[in-house]
Amino acid sequence: MNHFSYENLFGFSAALLTTIAFLPQLFKTWQTKSAEDVSLIMLILFITGLICWIIYGLKIHSIPILIANIITFIFNFSILILKTTYRKSMKQ
Amino acid sequence: MNHFSYENLFGFSAALLTTIAFLPQLFKTWQTKSAEDVSLIMLILFITGLICWIIYGLKIHSIPILIANIITFIFNFSILILKTTYRKSMKQ
Repeated sequence: MNHFSYENLFGFSAALLTTIAFLPQLFKTWQTKSAEDVSLIMLILFITGLICWIIYGLKIHSIPILIANIITFIFNFSILILKTTYRKSMKQ
Repeated sequence: MNHFSYENLFGFSAALLTTIAFLPQLFKTWQTKSAEDVSLIMLILFITGLICWIIYGLKIHSIPILIANIITFIFNFSILILKTTYRKSMKQ
């Protein structure tokens, strides 16, 4: 357990919080069936950034970067799909 | 320029994209004066996570982690302030 330093505690908390943060957003979007106020450009830029993080994680063989960003990608991609679906059904 | 490898290109693009992604969200919230669909719990968890990243960046003396997370913190804290302000003015 010598890897578990004071610094790493903040690093792990940071990675955990900035990853699970999108779960309540996903739940809210699914529950209210609306994501009008969520910026589409934000989602596209953020998801593209997450793909870059995943490639970076693969290239430098970093499991924490990979895990955190794959989970964040799944949450944000789901929010994007819900947003696009609800927008389409509103227009009909 | 020997630090500028193929891996780092993805790393820098990733950091840039996941940082500037929140600028269109901030602009949209300011323009529409509404952030009802943006989850408050997401903002709180994400901002707490960013504070942990900043502390981690300070502890391990990482300038890229510090810069990226301070900028992301400013954008998200501004979105939180706008969301709270617009919610209050709606209730009045």
